[in-house]
Amino acid sequence: MTLEVELKAPCKGAEDKVKALGAEFVKSETQEDTYFTHPACDFRRTDEALRIRRTDGLVLTYKGPKAKSDLKSREEIEFPVMEDAFTLLERLGFKKAFTIKKTRRTYSLDGLTVCCDLVDGLGEYVEVESKDPGDRGRILDVLDRLGVGGKTTTKTYSELLGL
Amino acid sequence: MTLEVELKAPCKGAEDKVKALGAEFVKSETQEDTYFTHPACDFRRTDEALRIRRTDGLVLTYKGPKAKSDLKSREEIEFPVMEDAFTLLERLGFKKAFTIKKTRRTYSLDGLTVCCDLVDGLGEYVEVESKDPGDRGRILDVLDRLGVGGKTTTKTYSELLGL
Repeated sequence: MTLEVELKAPCKGAEDKVKALGAEFVKSETQEDTYFTHPACDFRRTDEALRIRRTDGLVLTYKGPKAKSDLKSREEIEFPVMEDAFTLLERLGFKKAFTIKKTRRTYSLDGLTVCCDLVDGLGEYVEVESKDPGDRGRILDVLDRLGVGGKTTTKTYSELLGL
Repeated sequence: MTLEVELKAPCKGAEDKVKALGAEFVKSETQEDTYFTHPACDFRRTDEALRIRRTDGLVLTYKGPKAKSDLKSREEIEFPVMEDAFTLLERLGFKKAFTIKKTRRTYSLDGLTVCCDLVDGLGEYVEVESKDPGDRGRILDVLDRLGVGGKTTTKTYSELLGL
């Protein structure tokens, strides 16, 4: 279990701008996130999320309600699973709600994770993330230096896509 | 996803009897099974089960309703998980119902799995299992040769314990 603090913004030519700040390349991957509905509660109303992310392998992730903040801060629980996890969730009454695909090129900058995302249906976004809530100021600073400090959002990609 | 076919019986001195049939020792382990209730349905009524088994690692298992049969036959979906799985299930509204502990010494006999179980609160049981529904006759035959053909039950350990 970790606490995730992050903020994103639309950002054309994100990767060049991130490189120009001296960020270090970590990895590039295609992420296909399948989100599920809960059998007994409305995740939209409770502001929770359950998804399986497919990259090279599969990871099951639960995201808790977002804390009231200028940054997106929420509990995150995740661990790798096997293909059978889809069937298991279905048997328990969880239903596939929607899928979001993106290409994510991940960079590291002064201990922060900077993701250059090309999201199907949304375009280029940059997301700056930390596991340390004390990094809030530094996250905002990086977004300012990328020239997108005025365009930030705490919304998820699913919210931005209207899903 | 597999289909599990099994039958068990109380059996004092199970391991000596199993060895006497020429079964081959596979492994010995302590299993601590934590069962969960579903947030929206009654697993007792639907005849399903969700548990995390702790041995050296953790395995999450869903068991579907038992088919009507003289043997216990039911769908089984399982895969290894990490410690965080307990918290994730809790966040999704699944609650710990009860825990069953046993020492299981597993043998292999002509392609069948034979488990000599010492179950907390129940005592010694032998369980004969296969992934192939066509093995029903052979399972019954092994239990006869162990001298417990007349004492078999399709009940789960939790049912036998009245949990």
